[in-house]
Order: sequence, then C-alpha cells, then structure tokens
Amino acid sequence: MTLIERLAEIVGPANVLTGADTAPYRDDWTGRYWSEPRAVLRPATTAEVAAILRLASVEALPVVPAGGRTGLTGGTEAEGALMLSLERMNRIRAIRPEARTAVVEAGVILSTLHDATAALDLYFPLWFGARGSATIGGALSTNAGGSNVLRYGSTRALCLGLEVVLADGRVMDLMSELHKDNSGYDLKDLFIGAEGTLGVITAAVMKLVPAPRAHATAMLAAPSLTAALALLNRLQHATGGLVEAFEFMPRDYMEQLRDRRPDLGQPFAEIHDVTILVELGATAPRDTDPGPDGSVPLTGLLEETLGAMLEEGLVLDAVIATSEAQRAAIWARREAAAEIATGVGHAVDLDVALPLDRVETFLARLQDGLHALAPCAVTNTVGHLGDGNIHLAIFPGREDAALDDRITEAVEDIVADLGGSFSAEHGIGRSKLGSMRRRKDPVALDMMRAVKAAFDPKGILNPGKTVPESRA
Amino acid sequence: MTLIERLAEIVGPANVLTGADTAPYRDDWTGRYWSEPRAVLRPATTAEVAAILRLASVEALPVVPAGGRTGLTGGTEAEGALMLSLERMNRIRAIRPEARTAVVEAGVILSTLHDATAALDLYFPLWFGARGSATIGGALSTNAGGSNVLRYGSTRALCLGLEVVLADGRVMDLMSELHKDNSGYDLKDLFIGAEGTLGVITAAVMKLVPAPRAHATAMLAAPSLTAALALLNRLQHATGGLVEAFEFMPRDYMEQLRDRRPDLGQPFAEIHDVTILVELGATAPRDTDPGPDGSVPLTGLLEETLGAMLEEGLVLDAVIATSEAQRAAIWARREAAAEIATGVGHAVDLDVALPLDRVETFLARLQDGLHALAPCAVTNTVGHLGDGNIHLAIFPGREDAALDDRITEAVEDIVADLGGSFSAEHGIGRSKLGSMRRRKDPVALDMMRAVKAAFDPKGILNPGKTVPESRA
Repeated sequence: MTLIERLAEIVGPANVLTGADTAPYRDDWTGRYWSEPRAVLRPATTAEVAAILRLASVEALPVVPAGGRTGLTGGTEAEGALMLSLERMNRIRAIRPEARTAVVEAGVILSTLHDATAALDLYFPLWFGARGSATIGGALSTNAGGSNVLRYGSTRALCLGLEVVLADGRVMDLMSELHKDNSGYDLKDLFIGAEGTLGVITAAVMKLVPAPRAHATAMLAAPSLTAALALLNRLQHATGGLVEAFEFMPRDYMEQLRDRRPDLGQPFAEIHDVTILVELGATAPRDTDPGPDGSVPLTGLLEETLGAMLEEGLVLDAVIATSEAQRAAIWARREAAAEIATGVGHAVDLDVALPLDRVETFLARLQDGLHALAPCAVTNTVGHLGDGNIHLAIFPGREDAALDDRITEAVEDIVADLGGSFSAEHGIGRSKLGSMRRRKDPVALDMMRAVKAAFDPKGILNPGKTVPESRA
Repeated sequence: MTLIERLAEIVGPANVLTGADTAPYRDDWTGRYWSEPRAVLRPATTAEVAAILRLASVEALPVVPAGGRTGLTGGTEAEGALMLSLERMNRIRAIRPEARTAVVEAGVILSTLHDATAALDLYFPLWFGARGSATIGGALSTNAGGSNVLRYGSTRALCLGLEVVLADGRVMDLMSELHKDNSGYDLKDLFIGAEGTLGVITAAVMKLVPAPRAHATAMLAAPSLTAALALLNRLQHATGGLVEAFEFMPRDYMEQLRDRRPDLGQPFAEIHDVTILVELGATAPRDTDPGPDGSVPLTGLLEETLGAMLEEGLVLDAVIATSEAQRAAIWARREAAAEIATGVGHAVDLDVALPLDRVETFLARLQDGLHALAPCAVTNTVGHLGDGNIHLAIFPGREDAALDDRITEAVEDIVADLGGSFSAEHGIGRSKLGSMRRRKDPVALDMMRAVKAAFDPKGILNPGKTVPESRA
C-alpha cells in the first residue's frame, strides 16, 4: 500500500488531499509563506490524529498541524510535509455554564464559540480581527493575544485543560476543568505557544467569563503616550479595573487609515500624534443598570474621567459611542490594521513588547535609528498599549534583505536595551527564527532544544519552526 | 580538599553547616519528615548557587533546595543530601510601582514583601497562614495557593519572570517583566510547581496589584453548600467579581475549633453544617469612599446581598466585621486550621480539588465511604470553597498503614469519579508519590520523566520527590 492509501484508511479517501486539491492550503492569510504540502489530512477524531502520528513517527514523516492559518509568522508552512488540518474537529463538546467552562475541539472557530456562549450570557474573551477564521487550536498553539488581554490575559490564561497527541501517537489527557491542580509538572503550558512543535492539541477546556452587560467605548486624542498611560491608570482606578481594551493608533496609522480606508471615517477633524481606543466592560448592576435619566453609570464614569482630563489638557479631544453602531464603527478603524499593514509593499514586520512606561522611549529611539538606516522608510504602527505591545510594519522603500536584517537588528537592540521582547504575541514560526537565535537567552535556547528532543525525538512535528537549529 | 572544604570555599565556612549544626534543618513545619542532611549550605548569591550545583553535578551529589520549610508534603526532606537553604538570598532587588512588579530573590519571606508593598499602596496577593516563614522560592516551587486564589490566582498567575540555576550550574535568565512574551517555549511554568526537581529558582519577577482600600468581611451560616455557592455567585454579580476569599468551615471544623481554641470564640450561638468566611476587597472610589452617613458602599453591597438571602432562607445567620479588629478575629478562626488539623494524632491528609458544583456530592460520598472503612474515624474539613479546594484530615483512630492506604484510595476514587484532582495546592513532595503513580495520566507521567531526564540527567535535584519511579 502506498503512503496515501494508508492515510486514506485512517481518515477516509475524501480527507486525504493531494496534488491540485491541496491548492487552498498552499498559502496562509499573509500570502507570504507559500508551500506545497505532500498531502493535506483532515482527521475528524483524536483517534485519527493519533493513528496519523503513529504512522508518521514510524516513517519519520514531517507533520505540520494547521487551524485557520491566520498566523503571521509562517507557522503552518508545510513544504513536502503532511499538513494536518484540524478543521473537521470542530465540535463544542460541552458548555458548562455553572462552571463557566467550554470543552472544545481544536478546530472550533473562535467566533463559533463567541456565538455559542453569548446565548448563555457568557463570553469567551479572546478577541482579534481573525476571529472568524482562527481556531482554538491555533490560538492555543500560538498563545494568541488580541484586544482583551489587558483584562482577561492571553490564551494561556484562558485554558484549564488540554488533550494532546504526542509525536509517537500517544494521547495525553490533561483535560482538567479545575482552577487548582498541582499534580505534577505543568506540561499543559509547554504545548501552549509551542506552535505544534511538541504535540498536536486536539481539544481543550477553556474558561468563560460573565458577558459584560454594558460597554463604554471611546476614541480620544492625547498629547503624549505619558498622558495616555495616566488616563489608563485613572480609568482603572475609577472603575476598579474594568478597562477591556486600550489600543494605540499613532499618527502614521491614522494617516494610512485615512488614505486607504476613507470609508471608515476619522474620529477628529485633525490627526493627532496619539489616538486611543478605550473600552470598558461591566457586569455589575451598579455599573450597568441605567439611572432615572436613562444614562448608564459605566458611561458616566468614562465621561467624568475624560472630562476631567480634557480640562487638565491631558486629553485633547474625545468621542464616546452612544450606540452599538457607533461602537462598531470605532472598532472597525482598529480592526483595519491587518489590512493596512499588508499589501502596501515589502515590509519588515515586528511585534514587540515593552514595559509600559518605556513604550514612548522606544518609539522615539526607533525613529532615530530608522532614520539613520533608511531615511525614506515609512512605518505603520498600532498597538495594544495596555499590554505594552506594539505592532510595527516598516516599509524600507526597497527590497534588500541585508537592509531588512539591519533594521530588524537595530529595532531589537532598542527593545533588548529597554527590557522588552522581540516577540510579544505573534510567536516565532519561521519568520522570527533569526531573532530567537540572536536574542533568546542561550541557556533557555539549549533547554528548548532539550525539551523538543524529549517530546519529538525524530523531529517530525512542524520541523523548522520555533526552535532555531544549533549554530554549526 | 574534602567536599566540605570545597563547599566552604564557595559559600564561606560559616555557611556550611554539618553535624549538630544542621539540627534546626532536620525537620519541617509538619514535624513528619525528619531527615539528616549531609550538610546545609546557605549561599548568598546566584553565582554561589551555580558553583554549588556545578560541584554537585560533577560529583553526582543530591541537592535539596529549601525555603521556609513550611510545605506539607515532605518536599524538603534531605536525608544524606546537601540541603540548599536560600534563606540568605533575601533581597528585594526592586519594586517598580508604575509597572506593578517586584523583583525578588528566592529567600524573601512573603510577609516581608507584603510589608514592603503596603507602603506603596500595592499588594502582593499571595496569602496563607505560613506567610511569616514561607519564601517566594518555596511558594513558586510548590505553586502555592491560599485564600486569595479566587480573585488573583495561584503563585503561577503572579509570576512574570524567573531566574533559575540548572542542575549543571548554568544560569537561565527568564527574568521578563512583560505581560506578553511569546518568545519560545514556556520554560518558566515548568519550574513553577516542580518542587526543585528541575532547577533551583533563585529570583523572580512577581506581579503586584493595587492594594484594596476597603474590605468587607463576614462570617455566615448557610443551610447547604448549594446555598453557599448561590451566595458566591450573587456576590460576584453584585460587585463585578470583588470576592477575594470564600472559605468553607463545616461542622467538624467548627466543633474542633470550639474545643481546641475556645479563646477564638464562635460566630454563632449554635454550630451549623456550613459556615462561610467571605471577604470582598475594592480599590475604586465608588466602592470604597464612605457616603454621607459614613457607611462604605462595599459593605453596603455585602449587607444587601446577605439581607436578601436571609429573607429567602438561603443564609441562616451572618455577622459582618465593623472594624479591623473584628476582621482579624474572623480570620483567626480560619487560620487556626493548620494547628487544628495537626497534633491531634495520626491522620491521613488530603488536599483535593473538585469542580465547584460537585463539592457537596463529594462530601456526602466521602462520609459514606469512610463509614464503611473506618466507622470511628473523625474528620477535620476546611476549604477554599471558591476554588473547589477541600483540605481534609482523617483521623482513623489507629495507626494502620494498610487502612490509611485504603482510605486514601477510596477518597481518590470518589475524587477521580467527579473529575477532581488528588492534589489541589499542596503539591506532591514525598507524601503524594503513591497517588501520582496511581492517578496521573500514564502518558503525562512518562513525559514528566522525560522532562526530568532532560533537565536533570544525573537525578541530583531533590531526588525521590514529585516524580514517582517507574514500576519495576
């Protein structure tokens, strides 16, 4: 029997795609990581995944797990490999409202879970632009962040339990629904963010939170990042920590938004250095129930805080959404980021994290450093300011790999100097392997390799991702 | 040179204790795990820890890291080993109020950090009875829980970065101060809860939170656990999640408290089946600032909720603290638990976690199971009900190792059947090795052994703890 026939025995012939049938799987959302898988496999059960991996392990065949393929680092590039698409493992096994947990398979799309939980007044608080395609398995494998991390944490913080198929096909059951479980090493967190290089996540127990019953959403202009951070602190103090999103859109972003998406409109007559999207969310009646005049207390807290800061000159202008439609219009300006940062032309993409109080210094030093290396470079900057996370697309104006490297290293030098990270939330995949080699603590890199060897001794799981090869 | 002389060269002769000088280190807080270390070493710096481990690695000497030795599972038992006491690494390297982080050495005592942060209106939210002796390193190594986990999470959730000395003496720098950092495998969380078997934690970056500016604390009697959990849900809803502690003291506990600590008093004229300690904490002015009549809104929310439930018969009686002294008196009744559960006589100790909605079923089935095995057994039960975490001391009435095993297995059967964990927050150490062998997913246990082999190939780090040996 050929390999393809053996695979067809496991998942059925209709779920082994080869040749032209793999076309839809050859690139990812970025369009930058084109590859031709040997075959695309679409298992429907954990047992099928296990059988595939047993076979792949015996035959030493590379296997690349894939979800919605909306990642930004080439983590599902699968040249000559078996791509293991978990799209058919899309069952919500259970939602337990009283425990506030959802037991889901890896292929469940985020927005499917959002819809299923909304009906129960619960919320799965992982929220980013690609939520209509991205899957739970992909979010776990990349430890995805997004716009609500400030309040609820990254994917890691939302996961209570995992089911994982190991490289040799054994199934590891870590499907705890418990909030406390000190029964041995924390293996679960090793797989979260490992980009499918240590095992294939097939199911998970995810936390849910009470759905906010009121939001208060605003766009505002601030004279500086320092002023914006002062606003964040005051809002957190006034509300006891109800800020769900605090998103940063500087001048370069707002200008490109104006030019490329004029239909989305601009919040203010002029473009300011610092534009912020802020959103509060609340569940408690004292915040959400309208007063006698119909006003929502949460919105009142936002108005009061913004009003006081306008008087002090720490906020320059502000608009508060007064309807769901206005709220959606505000968010559309932020969620256009992915579209705006791609398709312009050749770009160096960076996704850095900094201590909050050093973001302003970082941006100033970045402009200086960039001016020295590529005087005509254009930037597109947007960020989850509340997490100190800045996404940066640098368009150097010409395709020159050596220049790209110099720019990347210069930015990373600044980030390292300020105690930051070269990868905040997008992960490593293929695109950040050079940064890993240069920037990661060498002892930690050695131990990553030791962990990889322990879990995947034949190196069949998503080879060439996450862990850079040792220097020769 | 003898081994002792070589060690003295590293840490100084005064910090190598041998013979009678090791006496204070021979037992731990429980008094159950007496051992005689070959020597006790008290390094003052990470470099000294590294030098000790380089030597121990070359000579294949067992090393047992120790902090305050307040653990409950024998995790620092050190017969014939080098005990590595981190007590002199007790420096708070920095507190960064604007970033809400503390950079601390492993030997810093929890209450020292509590005091240092209180002065800055910040709070390090790890809180349990032994806080006056327990260290950050010990809390990290056991992923300690305590009374505030419901609101702030276990130690793992409070740690942003670690410095770890590996078995061969290399220092791994994972001292991130960032809230987002997806630069490779999550090695940090492997060491948290590993009980010193994978490396020695020497320093950490810990999260701080705004210090609550008001607390509302009450003891109440409920007709059932179901009623108590309804109260928890109502309080979380009314306050938007401000419940910091929700502690369960059932009839057996309150009776033993009455008999053994009459000085602490009883909250109610009679003892009820279900007594609960509840505490809310708030930072926002709308919750904390007294109204015109001097009353604190947070206390008002607690009174209202309790009042409504008294009318419905879901709360039987309640007392709310009206001063810090009354609050302290309420907490003293809960914190007597460790004293009450030990010293009575021979006990089987259990620390289990259950899904919240199954705690009541667990306790009912436990009483039935226990009655069948040991009709005269007495229990002492206390728990962090908000986390589904029950601590259980069972006094079988006689010393009989076979009976102890039967009791343990019977309780674990019930726990497993209800989707719980045999170790919620105390960890494994020596005392739970049998449970690990019986109850842990066998694939997970295999991978724990693989991780142990990757990090500590010579098996010198805290041997005989956490990871049970393979069956012969």
